[in-house]
Amino acid sequence: MPAGIKVGGELDVGLIATEHQCVWAGTFTQNAAAAAPVLWSKARLSAPVRAVIVNSGNANACTGPEGAVAVESEAAAVAAELGCSPEEVLVASTGPIGIPLPVEKIVSAVPSLTGSLTDDTEPFANSILTTDTTIKTATASAGGATVVGVAKGAAMLAPNMATMLSFVATDAAVDAGTLQKVLDVAVDQSFNRISVDACESTNDSVFMLATGAAGEVPLAELSDATASVCKELAEAMVRDAEGGSRFVRVVVEGATSDSHACDLARAVASSALWKAAVHGADPNWGRIAAALGAADPALDLGTLAISINDVAVFTAGAPTDRLSEAHAAMATGDIIVTCVIGPGPGRAEFLTSDLSPDYVTLNAEGTT
Amino acid sequence: MPAGIKVGGELDVGLIATEHQCVWAGTFTQNAAAAAPVLWSKARLSAPVRAVIVNSGNANACTGPEGAVAVESEAAAVAAELGCSPEEVLVASTGPIGIPLPVEKIVSAVPSLTGSLTDDTEPFANSILTTDTTIKTATASAGGATVVGVAKGAAMLAPNMATMLSFVATDAAVDAGTLQKVLDVAVDQSFNRISVDACESTNDSVFMLATGAAGEVPLAELSDATASVCKELAEAMVRDAEGGSRFVRVVVEGATSDSHACDLARAVASSALWKAAVHGADPNWGRIAAALGAADPALDLGTLAISINDVAVFTAGAPTDRLSEAHAAMATGDIIVTCVIGPGPGRAEFLTSDLSPDYVTLNAEGTT
Repeated sequence: MPAGIKVGGELDVGLIATEHQCVWAGTFTQNAAAAAPVLWSKARLSAPVRAVIVNSGNANACTGPEGAVAVESEAAAVAAELGCSPEEVLVASTGPIGIPLPVEKIVSAVPSLTGSLTDDTEPFANSILTTDTTIKTATASAGGATVVGVAKGAAMLAPNMATMLSFVATDAAVDAGTLQKVLDVAVDQSFNRISVDACESTNDSVFMLATGAAGEVPLAELSDATASVCKELAEAMVRDAEGGSRFVRVVVEGATSDSHACDLARAVASSALWKAAVHGADPNWGRIAAALGAADPALDLGTLAISINDVAVFTAGAPTDRLSEAHAAMATGDIIVTCVIGPGPGRAEFLTSDLSPDYVTLNAEGTT
Repeated sequence: MPAGIKVGGELDVGLIATEHQCVWAGTFTQNAAAAAPVLWSKARLSAPVRAVIVNSGNANACTGPEGAVAVESEAAAVAAELGCSPEEVLVASTGPIGIPLPVEKIVSAVPSLTGSLTDDTEPFANSILTTDTTIKTATASAGGATVVGVAKGAAMLAPNMATMLSFVATDAAVDAGTLQKVLDVAVDQSFNRISVDACESTNDSVFMLATGAAGEVPLAELSDATASVCKELAEAMVRDAEGGSRFVRVVVEGATSDSHACDLARAVASSALWKAAVHGADPNWGRIAAALGAADPALDLGTLAISINDVAVFTAGAPTDRLSEAHAAMATGDIIVTCVIGPGPGRAEFLTSDLSPDYVTLNAEGTT
């Protein structure tokens, strides 16, 4: 619902509530400037909860002691309506950093929020958006249970442990420890494999709630469904990247390990020069080679092969002279960069967008 | 002189030659995709030399075995004219990566180059430019000797050990080991403290030649003069950053060590979001705090103070509500960001530019 945090009257506060106490898991930003709501929610890990209250339009980050007091007021307001303890209420925020949170607006909105709870995820998905242009939801079935996810994120997006904000819920019955493991694996394969601008946020949080209403389901099915939902949401974030017009999948194969492959794929996905080239549909593979070489002192050009949308542009240490073909292959649709760096078993994918003049324009105006 | 590597007929080949063998030192890119001329020159370290031949318009990087053969041809052509061995000729290249070097054009130009040697650094400074808009030269005196430097660099600029291309010469008499130490210290305080786009190049090289003609000078004076020349050239590169319109100096104080301070200053200088904010003169210090927090897990917001052009925007863990004042202070001139992170003795400066739509536009078109 619109609580008046965003100036345009858009939806800016959302609430997830469960009828009974439920099990939850979470992963949070590793940024040392973590926001007040991140610190509050993280401290509640493994104890059962009843609700998550979320606002957009203000990150409540770097807001000093006032920020922590604001979080407590939010939790207390929700707890009073639901008849639970404030410790059973998780809190999340997203928006500009360093602006005092107008917490009284959120507190005033709480009774309407608890009075208008619905099974429809759309109003909630809308309430957490900032510069996103579309809502992001995903669903997968896990045996007799379901996994549903909602997310937001379009910039300051280089998740490390988690991403801007994502909320996943299931009716499967599962203990908190197992749920945390399921979520950790899913997050590592999804939100930790995307980057819009290599800027790690102060508010990254992924929450996963499990009500147990559908009973126990096979763990493998719950894991697969959770990973599937998280990957779909992560990809949706990159497709909605601030100022981005092209979706880029970087695949690194032949590395010594998956984690080695991931480091190299992240390096290519973070190269401002390569991302600018993508914007111009320029198959400038030299910038890919430079990014790989800067990230891995042991890179061997002699065993390196690079292809762009299936056009081999560099093989066995030498260019192939197929630039016009690669340029044509980049004209429309997604860009898939494949880098085979050696004979190893390691493989990883990383998702990113192009770097556009619009990204800069969008981020050149803000707090004043 | 124009050898025809650049399509527009601009100057694209330059030669530095000394009458007698001279002592030299060098620092080179740590990129594993280092260009063929980097590998050649690095292998000559500590042995005396007679010349450096440089071309712009082509990096001769990722060009396979042909690239290495081209470097040998360049060295042989210069050696034949100067009457020395090819091993006494250093080679450097800058320009697009992965395009075969038209080495016959350089070889044909060598006789004219050796025939037109001059004490004027301007033609040489012009011949090494790529997307630079101005030549970059600096001079300092060291006791009875002089240190002269020339450099180029405007993008793919995040030097690690060295920078795009820089050539420093002195007539001081000094042994190779001492000269290398003098250069290492100077490079660490200058070229290793700048970033335009966090992209480490395949061709970064700093060469320093010492002819000895002026005799020995006090080491401290030679060190100071070298550091001064390198700093002036490094600052000139950032002021000429591709698409950049604002010069930014990031100062971090109160860190546990200078190297800790340098890591944090580099993190702020590499934040795409903060650099975009600079372009819009937006004092978005939350992006500075987020960059610091992402780079240092031990950052304590409670002891953090941030000011922008002397306006304190964040002190002791809380915002100061002086955004309009800071916005006004950013309107024109250089931007100086000062982050005091604690009571420690560590201090470092890092130079960067804003991130502009022009940077993206310039780099969205290239090889095709």
